Amino acid sequence: MKTCTLNALAVFGISLISVAVWCQNPHSRYGAAPVPTPATINPELREQLGAVRDAALESDYAWRQLEHLTENIGPRPAGSAAAQGAAEYVAGELRRIGLDVHLEPAQVSHWVRGEEKAELVEYPGQAPGSSQRLVLTALSGSSATPAAGVTAEVVVVHSFEELTAFGRDKVAGRIVLYNVPYDERKALAGHAFEAYGEAVVYRTRGAKEAAALGAVASLIRSVGGANCRLPHTGYSEPAGIPQAALAAEDADLIEHLAGQGRVRLHLTLTPQTLPETTGYNVVADLKGSEHPEQIVVVSGHLDSWDLGRGAIDDGAGVVMAMAAAEVLVRLHIRPRRTLRVIAWMDEENGGGGSKAYAQAHIGEMSNHIAAIESDQGAGHPLGFRLKMSADAMAAVRPVADSLKAIGATMLQPEEGSPGSDIAPLVGAGVPGIGINQDGRRYFDYHHSAADTIDKVDPQELNENAAAMAVMGYFLAAMPEPLPRSQK
Amino acid sequence: MKTCTLNALAVFGISLISVAVWCQNPHSRYGAAPVPTPATINPELREQLGAVRDAALESDYAWRQLEHLTENIGPRPAGSAAAQGAAEYVAGELRRIGLDVHLEPAQVSHWVRGEEKAELVEYPGQAPGSSQRLVLTALSGSSATPAAGVTAEVVVVHSFEELTAFGRDKVAGRIVLYNVPYDERKALAGHAFEAYGEAVVYRTRGAKEAAALGAVASLIRSVGGANCRLPHTGYSEPAGIPQAALAAEDADLIEHLAGQGRVRLHLTLTPQTLPETTGYNVVADLKGSEHPEQIVVVSGHLDSWDLGRGAIDDGAGVVMAMAAAEVLVRLHIRPRRTLRVIAWMDEENGGGGSKAYAQAHIGEMSNHIAAIESDQGAGHPLGFRLKMSADAMAAVRPVADSLKAIGATMLQPEEGSPGSDIAPLVGAGVPGIGINQDGRRYFDYHHSAADTIDKVDPQELNENAAAMAVMGYFLAAMPEPLPRSQK
Repeated sequence: MKTCTLNALAVFGISLISVAVWCQNPHSRYGAAPVPTPATINPELREQLGAVRDAALESDYAWRQLEHLTENIGPRPAGSAAAQGAAEYVAGELRRIGLDVHLEPAQVSHWVRGEEKAELVEYPGQAPGSSQRLVLTALSGSSATPAAGVTAEVVVVHSFEELTAFGRDKVAGRIVLYNVPYDERKALAGHAFEAYGEAVVYRTRGAKEAAALGAVASLIRSVGGANCRLPHTGYSEPAGIPQAALAAEDADLIEHLAGQGRVRLHLTLTPQTLPETTGYNVVADLKGSEHPEQIVVVSGHLDSWDLGRGAIDDGAGVVMAMAAAEVLVRLHIRPRRTLRVIAWMDEENGGGGSKAYAQAHIGEMSNHIAAIESDQGAGHPLGFRLKMSADAMAAVRPVADSLKAIGATMLQPEEGSPGSDIAPLVGAGVPGIGINQDGRRYFDYHHSAADTIDKVDPQELNENAAAMAVMGYFLAAMPEPLPRSQK
Repeated sequence: MKTCTLNALAVFGISLISVAVWCQNPHSRYGAAPVPTPATINPELREQLGAVRDAALESDYAWRQLEHLTENIGPRPAGSAAAQGAAEYVAGELRRIGLDVHLEPAQVSHWVRGEEKAELVEYPGQAPGSSQRLVLTALSGSSATPAAGVTAEVVVVHSFEELTAFGRDKVAGRIVLYNVPYDERKALAGHAFEAYGEAVVYRTRGAKEAAALGAVASLIRSVGGANCRLPHTGYSEPAGIPQAALAAEDADLIEHLAGQGRVRLHLTLTPQTLPETTGYNVVADLKGSEHPEQIVVVSGHLDSWDLGRGAIDDGAGVVMAMAAAEVLVRLHIRPRRTLRVIAWMDEENGGGGSKAYAQAHIGEMSNHIAAIESDQGAGHPLGFRLKMSADAMAAVRPVADSLKAIGATMLQPEEGSPGSDIAPLVGAGVPGIGINQDGRRYFDYHHSAADTIDKVDPQELNENAAAMAVMGYFLAAMPEPLPRSQK
């Protein structure tokens, strides 16, 4: 088993998405020393947890905050004025309700979308003098085309193996299209993240593989489920060539036409990767009454992609964390340990915020009792995904009883990190927890222009706020701190 | 009751959509002389109708034609090279299967979409230095803004009455937004066209009303049901100001923000209304064996909006009509009367094709026995909407038996014309028939970029082709011609 340290993370600059998998230790759940944890929760705490849950369920606080973030502030890509405004807004709001708030600086990405258009300029059956516009959107690792665009023949593949089999002869000088569908049936069967994972590899490293064989640009079929000619953007590894995601309908169009003969495409993408800039994580403490130095993190990420307004990804997660603190303040409940709200910056395009936090707090890792993140939308919470030792799992289990009334009782072990922002903490041995939402429709809107507040159900948002508040308060109020994971 | 003549239509240039309503005569269904029509169909004809139906259901002809029109040719706005290519393709294909084909010229509109973008530049809670891009698309009656755009405050209304009540004081110099939702619940209850009709009046004449009070631009909420941040274009009356349709999410955003304070918007639209040009209806006859001069029209419109690929609106209608002829040819069935396939040009933006046809054939109106059109998508056919006399209805009724196997047995009287392209014929007394599809989801994609072939179910397309073939052949094979409507 590899030892995973934050230094290694910093040195290798590894995508945080993959950190948890890389750091996973199949023995960690069995190796920790047993600790005395109650099989049930004492009556006073149980009553408090019920009150916290019900107050969160009945509040409009989370919804109002989400309205402000998504509609008054809008899209919040890292490095943007809106992301800065959002951090100041969240800080001000949490200060207003009495938390101890500071903004923690981080080096964050600064990517700006430019012009993006594509046109089929040659294809079988083309009407003389006509062409067809395509719907697409640039990915974050995209190089710019010349201002006048680039024109090349398209070669369609469905896997890396097929690309390799085609080889340089068929790929060099061409535009590669990976037409790999997001498996909507699998998603609707409850395995949306598995479906996403299978397709997103072509977004992440498709261009690198294509560029290695001399491709002049790389396109993917959008990784998402809606059938509204909606392109989905996202992170991709820079590969020195333009990269974009086509709407599913346009990927299929090209595949259909390319099956009949030569298809040439004119592509113009002018994104700019600007120098990294300073962004901010919002860190807001509701100080613990007995162990203020011990920290339970509740969190979501404040940055969003630029196309939508970042409602399900991940304004929702931020306002759940805000609501978890707000409900305790409103009920005049002071946790034993510090409940720390974190609104992470730049989850989407490099993880600068979570890297900076882990570095700045490296000396306090042992005081981080647990870290909760929500970054799977705002669908009905089914329960939690937990990356922790078996003893810690056993210690957490009694909280399910307090979550029964909202149906969020599933406590499932997770091999990787339950969230990308908390991955550096999880990698350092902090028990990690993610809310496990019903995500069957999450990828219909994720990373698209349609990520707007109407995609969030206010009642389900409150269920999530209640779930985060109950779990967060439970961990901050337990008599003994949660056992740490082995590193 | 007004008398409706084609001359009047030509003189007043009235929108064909409204012709049928204007021409309706509540007595026409009761006044015609009784004709001897069989209560049932003779066994030989019944057998033929079953064979036609089954051959259409089992064929891939309609699908292959739809693929070609939508994917190889693509968007087909009137006046475009692709529309011309589509007319030539359909003519060539119908000639290939043995029909007597000609292209009939028509003066058609030529509208070209330009740049279209909008940005909220001032709104409550705005982060310093930020702005928000909106998703919209120009309507056909839109004037262009200056190249640098126009900036003005937005005033939100929900009806013409509210606009009038605001008056010139609150409207002049501002951008009016009609935030009137398409009633999706009503649509899903089976009344999609009623829901559409209620909202589309703001698209059609909203700008005129706004301009009359001094508005500098007019926006509507898109008339459609999908929630994918998808704008829907369409016909609108020119009003000397820019006009566009916002995605529903953006209309709601503006309304929300405008409820909190001043909202200013920067709008750039550069569409061009070019001089009318010559387009073509495709007119293709399968000549009748006994009465070649008597004509039964089967039709759909070949032009589409530019954003999508015109699959449900109305490539589907065209290929149903093509398939109705093709199946007869394939089965070596020659109808008694002429079955005339018409692929109409410019239904969407002025009706130039149907006007030209009515003028060119004014002397043969009495030989037009019936006119069938499909322009409500490609959903499962429930039956037909009929604009004809009571006697004609009675004469048609027996065909329902042959349609039972595809569930298309509902024969409903219609007050207006069952289709806008056949409205001039209907206005001249020709019995008119429209296929009545399940349209509950039609307006999710209608007039949007998402009108692509994946929205069509091949089996349902074939059901429609079968329905049109059965009805068309029945009318062309009846012993006596269908009684005409009173004018």
